[in-house]
Amino acid sequence: MIDCGEGAQKELQRQRLKLPRLNHIFLTHLHGDHVFGLPGLIGTMALSGLEGDITIHTFEDGKKILSTMFDYFNRGLPIDVKINVIRPEEAIVFENDSLRVRTVPLRHKIPAVGYVFEEKPGLRHIDRAMCDFHGVPIWAFNRIKAGEDFIKPDGSVIANSILTKDPNPPRSYAHISDTSYIPDLASKIRGVDLLFHETTYLTPDSDKAKERGHSTAAEAARIAKDAGARRLVTGHYSSRYKDDSLFLEEARSIFPNVILGKEGLRIPI
Amino acid sequence: MIDCGEGAQKELQRQRLKLPRLNHIFLTHLHGDHVFGLPGLIGTMALSGLEGDITIHTFEDGKKILSTMFDYFNRGLPIDVKINVIRPEEAIVFENDSLRVRTVPLRHKIPAVGYVFEEKPGLRHIDRAMCDFHGVPIWAFNRIKAGEDFIKPDGSVIANSILTKDPNPPRSYAHISDTSYIPDLASKIRGVDLLFHETTYLTPDSDKAKERGHSTAAEAARIAKDAGARRLVTGHYSSRYKDDSLFLEEARSIFPNVILGKEGLRIPI
Repeated sequence: MIDCGEGAQKELQRQRLKLPRLNHIFLTHLHGDHVFGLPGLIGTMALSGLEGDITIHTFEDGKKILSTMFDYFNRGLPIDVKINVIRPEEAIVFENDSLRVRTVPLRHKIPAVGYVFEEKPGLRHIDRAMCDFHGVPIWAFNRIKAGEDFIKPDGSVIANSILTKDPNPPRSYAHISDTSYIPDLASKIRGVDLLFHETTYLTPDSDKAKERGHSTAAEAARIAKDAGARRLVTGHYSSRYKDDSLFLEEARSIFPNVILGKEGLRIPI
Repeated sequence: MIDCGEGAQKELQRQRLKLPRLNHIFLTHLHGDHVFGLPGLIGTMALSGLEGDITIHTFEDGKKILSTMFDYFNRGLPIDVKINVIRPEEAIVFENDSLRVRTVPLRHKIPAVGYVFEEKPGLRHIDRAMCDFHGVPIWAFNRIKAGEDFIKPDGSVIANSILTKDPNPPRSYAHISDTSYIPDLASKIRGVDLLFHETTYLTPDSDKAKERGHSTAAEAARIAKDAGARRLVTGHYSSRYKDDSLFLEEARSIFPNVILGKEGLRIPI
């Protein structure tokens, strides 16, 4: 989960997302609208009988203030909240066999980071017909998937590329909020499949965007274009605008593949 | 406002209640589901351009933890949050010309109070026909409303009771949550017009109610009956029950005037 605004637990319920599957929360920065849902969510997870641990990635300041809140309100609950202290800089903050998460520093009124989620290349796909033809036994499939060649009983070698097909291309997602326009950012999120970039304002209010550490829809689109992103999702709209479709329009004038972000939207990557 | 759970600001918006009219929040106890909406609400009030102050009535512990949260998240906002430290005992915690608010101690897992809101007697109503008949000038109406007799130019005295009718009877509301059954409580909220008393459980689970510091619908009804309350509102239902009407049924078997409490319900007093 990225950030956790007030009411996040209700939204998770509404969308029937499973709490037990949530074990990492990545905070972009410590403004209330991005964190006030945390203590309630943690409390609900604990009261639902969930055990185990959950890791919150946040700055040193967040560690202090969240610990104070959790110590008071979630004392004695059977859930272990770990805080992974991050810094507003480029770094890998999480990594396992299939995924890497890294931070990119943003430019907001207070320290802020974006997150890039990068899938690692998966195993190769077995070409069943070719394996059968060359007599590869099933017990050898895992090695073949991992890229090994097959050595027949007569000593001849069948190259892996004959027995397998390329794995699914690894997917990536970049989450960029809240920030003013950083031209340099594009180089750090090059080629992402999906880019969420905040679009708090429209171009006529670009002075406000700069002043308050936010971006316009056009600026977000420029980042998507410069980064060679496949698709851009907009969001974090200022309440001054009554018609969200204006964000779509402005962004599309610069970058074609724009999805208008809204509450509850699901986007397969 | 009494307590402020997560999402309270959204509910206020949905009900089109006006934030500027909110200047006192009375907290019953410091469990997360009763306070997690506070920092967001205060932040929104400040960002909506509201100035002035808001007073939160809470225990010493609440002062510490809320101050920490406000200092961090609401720093520099143009709203002045005052904390009035209360104690889990009988006391008057707020009073102005028209209203008195007092606490009654409850029995929960942590210190908790209920609140009783008592209107003060209003001004008497002018009987316009009688005033005209006795020649009372309009500039004297305020005094007459306040209870003074009228002295005619010839020195004769018209008793106030001839010129006025009784004021509306002062209204009262008691808010009792969270607590286990306290037989003695009825004597402290005698004759309230409206009683909210939590009904977390039904009688078959009364052992759980006792263990967790909550009440059954029957216990709430007994308090309403013993206190001579005019009406009882139920609420704070455990999620274990799928059918809220069971609370109504159980309470009505003991006390007839029960209103089934639910989100967004408005009850004129």
